[in-house]
Amino acid sequence: MVYLDYAAATPLSEKAKKAMLPFFDEKFFNPSAAYLPANKIRQDYEKAKGDIAHVIGAKAADLIMTSGATEANSLVFASIPDDAEVLISAVEHPSIRENAKRKNYQMISVDKNGRIDLEDFRKKLTPKTQLVSVCFASSELGAIQPLSDIARIIQEERTRRAFADEKTPLFFHSDASQGLGLAEIKVARLGVDLLTINAAKVYGPKGIGALYVGRNVRLKPQSYGGGQEMGLRSGTENVPATVAFATAILEADKHLGGERKRLATLRNQFKKRLEEKIPGVEFLSKEKVQLPNFLPITIPGLDAERLIFALEDKDVYLSTGAACAASKGEKSPTLKAIGLNDEQIAGSLRITLGAPTTEEDVEYAANAIAEVVLAERERLAK
Amino acid sequence: MVYLDYAAATPLSEKAKKAMLPFFDEKFFNPSAAYLPANKIRQDYEKAKGDIAHVIGAKAADLIMTSGATEANSLVFASIPDDAEVLISAVEHPSIRENAKRKNYQMISVDKNGRIDLEDFRKKLTPKTQLVSVCFASSELGAIQPLSDIARIIQEERTRRAFADEKTPLFFHSDASQGLGLAEIKVARLGVDLLTINAAKVYGPKGIGALYVGRNVRLKPQSYGGGQEMGLRSGTENVPATVAFATAILEADKHLGGERKRLATLRNQFKKRLEEKIPGVEFLSKEKVQLPNFLPITIPGLDAERLIFALEDKDVYLSTGAACAASKGEKSPTLKAIGLNDEQIAGSLRITLGAPTTEEDVEYAANAIAEVVLAERERLAK
Repeated sequence: MVYLDYAAATPLSEKAKKAMLPFFDEKFFNPSAAYLPANKIRQDYEKAKGDIAHVIGAKAADLIMTSGATEANSLVFASIPDDAEVLISAVEHPSIRENAKRKNYQMISVDKNGRIDLEDFRKKLTPKTQLVSVCFASSELGAIQPLSDIARIIQEERTRRAFADEKTPLFFHSDASQGLGLAEIKVARLGVDLLTINAAKVYGPKGIGALYVGRNVRLKPQSYGGGQEMGLRSGTENVPATVAFATAILEADKHLGGERKRLATLRNQFKKRLEEKIPGVEFLSKEKVQLPNFLPITIPGLDAERLIFALEDKDVYLSTGAACAASKGEKSPTLKAIGLNDEQIAGSLRITLGAPTTEEDVEYAANAIAEVVLAERERLAK
Repeated sequence: MVYLDYAAATPLSEKAKKAMLPFFDEKFFNPSAAYLPANKIRQDYEKAKGDIAHVIGAKAADLIMTSGATEANSLVFASIPDDAEVLISAVEHPSIRENAKRKNYQMISVDKNGRIDLEDFRKKLTPKTQLVSVCFASSELGAIQPLSDIARIIQEERTRRAFADEKTPLFFHSDASQGLGLAEIKVARLGVDLLTINAAKVYGPKGIGALYVGRNVRLKPQSYGGGQEMGLRSGTENVPATVAFATAILEADKHLGGERKRLATLRNQFKKRLEEKIPGVEFLSKEKVQLPNFLPITIPGLDAERLIFALEDKDVYLSTGAACAASKGEKSPTLKAIGLNDEQIAGSLRITLGAPTTEEDVEYAANAIAEVVLAERERLAK
């Protein structure tokens, strides 16, 4: 089996699994309980939060643990008024797009690589903008956004507001679900006030994520109760998942340099093979701005869904676009935003590599894709 | 070690753990992906939801999976307007109380056993009441509420509104976090429109719960994105935790009858021992209306926190009240509501038994509590 959909889901790392298991039974206490064994769990939990925070250059107290990226993103949008002006990029994940639709939002254009157009951003940023939300990297293209350039423009606008004595707040949020464990992500360097991270894309478990919240930001909670997570997200802490998240992200961070190179090499080899074997294949975005594991392609004239089903017979698994959007059968707004036509969109596949991907996988999958494409072209030519 | 705080947290059952593990690695696919192995995960997920639903007499399509009880409760309250009239019992968990505080709420009085006063309820129910939220059983006392009586009164008011052509909706919600796996809980029989359940109290994992939503109810989502859970709770499904929840709850349900008897016998034996050994011990609420594993007591004149620390040395672990409230050091509103004075509240301990509790545990713990109490009384008498 060759799985090439690591942007949709990653398996739990062995280390993370091992670290997590004792917290299901031996160490199952409620961290809010008063006795010592529960206090120890509280410490393990805080330590895990600290480890996660450390990887993004923050402290445990800056993180609100959530059930995943969607909850973290929703918490950000729920904290600003419904009529607030919001700017998002045109290549955001549905969890940003659907949240933005509930506000007074505009989309910032992207270039053909899927990167934000800074001029368009400057034009759309008004004295009333309260939130700018741009992903670290597009979940469909892997294109890394120029976040620090965006942060600089936001800082200029904040300075202008301060001098003009305008009180409208302006926050900068980024969903880094794609990118964590594959790129250096440090909140200060990126200049973000809010950052979403997600365990399930970095070999941690499903059901756990976090929102980094800068100290200048005041969030409005969405759940009320025991006052956990500094009162911003009540509910008994998911200790096992948080410990596993910490283990997985520390592991990824430790091997970041080598793994990036390894994945980029594999990706480039994959690209070369597809270029050799499939006339007319087009590569979306470009390596220079992409995460090292992304290889989004299109084969105009073919139907990506048919290709995926044919590839299943060869035990090769990949995606037509973001998994979430895919299930609703609507055309990818991201692919439209980078200027693809309907044929290009219909024929688009998202190949994403991961830690378990080997050179043999790449050779096998490139052959399989080529065979399936050529067979499909033959069928259509009849 | 004798752990007697099962109302705060339960360990994961062996069966649930075993059922869950493959979903972390072999079966880690995103259930929204288009390929067959992912479809199979989707089926496993829906099957697990169906199993959970079955236990409460519902269908998979009636459940919204959440990250726990607090999220489920918050989802209910977030769905009604901020100025809506809300009634809750005076013995609710903080996750209900804190949510209610954001609405126009009133508390329904309880009797000395912690059960709702139906006359007071009738009095406080107005033509403007939109939500009634009463727990299945109090998390501090274990007192089971007369939900079907409440449902009958609500139904009368609904009928009145229908005939009077009044459009104000009226929903009945119950948090059954305490009680699931220890009592028959069927939504139709209880007459609830909304029911919160929680894996972490029934030998499932932390970080997963569900809200049953009757077909007459329209909820407002709190998170937006991929449209999972019928669009009411977006975010990649927490498949491993849902499968574990299903396994744990089916197991508990299978042994419900026997386990209830076993726990009640142990609880009564515990009570007898404490009565014999500790002059002046008072038992809160009464067995007839309590969950079989609850034994809340008070030893007026003593400080429960001191007792808990002393019991730690004897490897006996229990709680002073709900774990969440405990961590904030405020006096328990539940214990005030049943009419306890400050001395009684200060000396109150919550003993809750669980599936692993044995007769030896009970004998040992009763002795340990008695020793600690008598030593403490001696110290104070000096």
